[in-house]
Amino acid sequence: MFRQTSRRRRRCAMSALLRGIVAYPITPFLPSGGVDEGLLGKIVDDMVTAGVHAIAPLGSTGVLPYLSDEEREHVAEVVIQRVAGRVPTLVGVSSLTTERTAHHAKHAEKLGASAVMIIPMSYWKLTEAEIFSHFDTVAKGISIPIAVYNNPATGGLDLSPDLIARLLKIPNVTMVKESTGDVNRMHRLVQLCGEDVAFYNGSNPLALAAFVAGARGWCTAAAHIIPKLNIELYDAIQRGDLAAARRSFRRQLPLLQFIVAHGLPRAISAALELQGITVGPLRAPLQALPPERIAELRRILVGLDVVS
Amino acid sequence: MFRQTSRRRRRCAMSALLRGIVAYPITPFLPSGGVDEGLLGKIVDDMVTAGVHAIAPLGSTGVLPYLSDEEREHVAEVVIQRVAGRVPTLVGVSSLTTERTAHHAKHAEKLGASAVMIIPMSYWKLTEAEIFSHFDTVAKGISIPIAVYNNPATGGLDLSPDLIARLLKIPNVTMVKESTGDVNRMHRLVQLCGEDVAFYNGSNPLALAAFVAGARGWCTAAAHIIPKLNIELYDAIQRGDLAAARRSFRRQLPLLQFIVAHGLPRAISAALELQGITVGPLRAPLQALPPERIAELRRILVGLDVVS
Amino acid sequence: MFRQTSRRRRRCAMSALLRGIVAYPITPFLPSGGVDEGLLGKIVDDMVTAGVHAIAPLGSTGVLPYLSDEEREHVAEVVIQRVAGRVPTLVGVSSLTTERTAHHAKHAEKLGASAVMIIPMSYWKLTEAEIFSHFDTVAKGISIPIAVYNNPATGGLDLSPDLIARLLKIPNVTMVKESTGDVNRMHRLVQLCGEDVAFYNGSNPLALAAFVAGARGWCTAAAHIIPKLNIELYDAIQRGDLAAARRSFRRQLPLLQFIVAHGLPRAISAALELQGITVGPLRAPLQALPPERIAELRRILVGLDVVS
Amino acid sequence: MFRQTSRRRRRCAMSALLRGIVAYPITPFLPSGGVDEGLLGKIVDDMVTAGVHAIAPLGSTGVLPYLSDEEREHVAEVVIQRVAGRVPTLVGVSSLTTERTAHHAKHAEKLGASAVMIIPMSYWKLTEAEIFSHFDTVAKGISIPIAVYNNPATGGLDLSPDLIARLLKIPNVTMVKESTGDVNRMHRLVQLCGEDVAFYNGSNPLALAAFVAGARGWCTAAAHIIPKLNIELYDAIQRGDLAAARRSFRRQLPLLQFIVAHGLPRAISAALELQGITVGPLRAPLQALPPERIAELRRILVGLDVVS
Repeated sequence: MFRQTSRRRRRCAMSALLRGIVAYPITPFLPSGGVDEGLLGKIVDDMVTAGVHAIAPLGSTGVLPYLSDEEREHVAEVVIQRVAGRVPTLVGVSSLTTERTAHHAKHAEKLGASAVMIIPMSYWKLTEAEIFSHFDTVAKGISIPIAVYNNPATGGLDLSPDLIARLLKIPNVTMVKESTGDVNRMHRLVQLCGEDVAFYNGSNPLALAAFVAGARGWCTAAAHIIPKLNIELYDAIQRGDLAAARRSFRRQLPLLQFIVAHGLPRAISAALELQGITVGPLRAPLQALPPERIAELRRILVGLDVVS
Repeated sequence: MFRQTSRRRRRCAMSALLRGIVAYPITPFLPSGGVDEGLLGKIVDDMVTAGVHAIAPLGSTGVLPYLSDEEREHVAEVVIQRVAGRVPTLVGVSSLTTERTAHHAKHAEKLGASAVMIIPMSYWKLTEAEIFSHFDTVAKGISIPIAVYNNPATGGLDLSPDLIARLLKIPNVTMVKESTGDVNRMHRLVQLCGEDVAFYNGSNPLALAAFVAGARGWCTAAAHIIPKLNIELYDAIQRGDLAAARRSFRRQLPLLQFIVAHGLPRAISAALELQGITVGPLRAPLQALPPERIAELRRILVGLDVVS
Repeated sequence: MFRQTSRRRRRCAMSALLRGIVAYPITPFLPSGGVDEGLLGKIVDDMVTAGVHAIAPLGSTGVLPYLSDEEREHVAEVVIQRVAGRVPTLVGVSSLTTERTAHHAKHAEKLGASAVMIIPMSYWKLTEAEIFSHFDTVAKGISIPIAVYNNPATGGLDLSPDLIARLLKIPNVTMVKESTGDVNRMHRLVQLCGEDVAFYNGSNPLALAAFVAGARGWCTAAAHIIPKLNIELYDAIQRGDLAAARRSFRRQLPLLQFIVAHGLPRAISAALELQGITVGPLRAPLQALPPERIAELRRILVGLDVVS
Repeated sequence: MFRQTSRRRRRCAMSALLRGIVAYPITPFLPSGGVDEGLLGKIVDDMVTAGVHAIAPLGSTGVLPYLSDEEREHVAEVVIQRVAGRVPTLVGVSSLTTERTAHHAKHAEKLGASAVMIIPMSYWKLTEAEIFSHFDTVAKGISIPIAVYNNPATGGLDLSPDLIARLLKIPNVTMVKESTGDVNRMHRLVQLCGEDVAFYNGSNPLALAAFVAGARGWCTAAAHIIPKLNIELYDAIQRGDLAAARRSFRRQLPLLQFIVAHGLPRAISAALELQGITVGPLRAPLQALPPERIAELRRILVGLDVVS
């Protein structure tokens, strides 16, 4: 009973904490293949300095599933230490198996993560009972909040709003990142869970519609390149300035469309390179964008005044 | 040259005219099977009195494809006469063949329609060249503006934003009704055609997101039941009052979801019956909603205070 | 009771009758726009002479939905008279409304059709109850057998094997033409209805797999061009000669793939023209194939020795 | 040059070798969570004794992606030793990263695998260039043949016939397992690569159609339960006895449909349990079938006379 109450308090605290621009760093690699922790630290630092509201290592952008267990733990440590409590950290801990997911969740908690994020991944399609049990088992092993991450395009499983609503009844499952790109899912979540449901948008081109639908935050890798514009959109929404929000969104949209169309790790790495930051190779089978795509990206970045 | 200029002027005039809530009346039938023109007139009258900004007979809601050519012409005449210029009329003139579409478009113009709407329909999937030629041929035969209607769920063809942008270069093709329910299509249209592109939303649950994306109007059958709420949402957006818009939208949403889930003609007929208006049979193969759905609809209408 | 028995007897008779290659003629048009009944008669005659086992006017190939009611009745009459009982006729009678479908079914019966075929068509998606009632109403008005035609790619509705099994319990609904291209549907039909279920394949590239799965016939427009090869495949299957069947099928496959990829009316018209038969214009919005496709088709026809 | 020739010779040898029923063992677990190598050995032994033509450990059935690197290597070793050259072994070596895939491929070769199978897996969707390079890199590191495995339902990537044809030009990429369940893909492969292309069917309910289309083998987990029937179907096809093949296939079909509908590891584990073999827990998040599904499976097994 007490534990429940204490959990709820923490949950409310987290809900209050996690708002605005949640920035997803890439995991940069050295030419030798290992994680480039120097560049990772600099990227995280730049994001925090630019004013983003939270840092989320080991997301899709961070190529979580392509890392070894040791690399994952190392990335989490580097990022949490670098952030040093300046903003909340939301650490990705997903694995195909429940056992590995629980392991990484506990490890993130020990490192001081503010919360963890879990995308249920498929090789075999999971039943709803299996997905529920997966979250429930992991949740029982930690005390920090969990964000459910729904992204069928990468994880291969689509969680219905009804299932998400059920998952949100597990005590420390308190947040949802919706990346289907369907604003109707968000309205449905509000209908099922109430206006206080803490949902976040993970589909970049949906940023405006999602904020209007009530999203608390926008999970984005665009904050590597245009953090000020990302924050500008959030601020306009906070002020209720629809015209300014629409103007800011339209300015960002070409970049948002590009990074989604070509894959976040590929697109963000190329954009950083265009800004003069040397990023090592992607982890194979992922490859760098071809030259014609890089030229297209350069035109977009020039239009945004972030490359001259 | 002159004709072009005059067309553009008319086009601008229409763009200015057609804004806000575009109401789509059902086509009610008599027990004997024919069109119930008395009820049709009353429905249209009620909508105009309630303050909707335009009337669009012979849409999907009006079961256009299920009517004979004679019935279609009759419905257009009844509605245009009843509206009597109080608001613009947007008349559906689609047929599978180009020849029949052109025929109905000319007839609507003769009757005094403000504009016509055309959804390219498929039995055989059409190529882009075929769709373009279909619109171009019809457009050459009339002087009033044409709205392209994109609704793959009913018409069976999905017009890409790029194709729509090409269609909008045909002189009197000046408007687009987008019913895919994907707000990204709307942003893409603005990117391709500029901020002045006259697009309208035809997906009811997308009403809020579409207005925020810049839609000029909302094409809806909900105006049979909740015209004041539909107008309230539009007005809130016009004022830039995001909080009020969201509140109004959330109130309407259960009805919008219901009418889309169960088919507009079925759902609207049932809702009118629940309000005490005797609507005749649907045209077979369409059938009335089953009792359990009607009970669900009643609960929604009670929640909206339109049924006690 | 007697009527039931008599119906069953007729049903069995029809099941015995309709086997093998069911040829679907195009509806050719005159430059003036009307039906070219002279060419239609010649096409039908050539098919029967070549040895096909049945003729099916007013199918998808015959652009049924693009014809007026009068044209439809005329085409049915021309074809039935020309066939003159040499082989069975299966006449397409589908309309969006139940009333028009029933009307055409009765008319076909009066003209002497052996059976009618009905594809439930959608503008509004139909419920299973609506589809069942549609067939049941039409069936009650005629005494000849009905074939259910399932082709979601054109009709917009997908009938599950379970629904088809229910439709086959309506006394004179005795046959199914499956055009989804999924051989598993056919196995499922056999599981649900028994080995004697009279199913026909309407997906050209599935011809071999469907016969192996137990299809009684192959509904095809390819019989305009390669009737002998179509019959050769059927005969090989009848003899149980798998190697010959596979060889014959592989020879036909490029043409089958082409006509499906580019639309039967467009592709067959072009193939007839390449064989020196003057076919008039397609009915707009359908257009003739572009030159590069015609060149591709010519290469296929040369490979089949039907064009030199 | 010499290496190339020698590779081709080996390739032909393998093509000759790998035919018929390719059996996919599950990876059974102990209650403590580790691999139950005793039961794994027994399962493999039973399959070989029953007459299957090849053994393929570490497939989807063997829950490859849910195993640690150490477990994978151990399973490969146990199976290859137990088979002891009696039939060829086809070892799954797929990982998300190219580096890990190459590592496992080399390890399998060292253990004496006859060939390896690779399914390109997605978290981020891969481009065709990335998929090609993934196979090419792995292929360069080993001398034994590689089978491309296409299964978008599990791997999340769909390889087109054109891409598969390109992959088959990499010297030791010599085989394809197609699991899309679309027989047209198989015909397309033959058109692109010639009649000698070594393709195998991985979609259980497509077994009959695939053999008729020319598949060399059937990759199946059903060989845990009904190996004699699997072989009977293959033998009937080899004899060209279409009627016997169809009869055998229809008998097996309910089980094939069930195991596909409910997931191979879940369904096969339950079927073994129903036969009195104690199988440990599935690896979470995968869970045992619920009781009503097990009852359904029992009825199917009783119908097949493998459970009384």
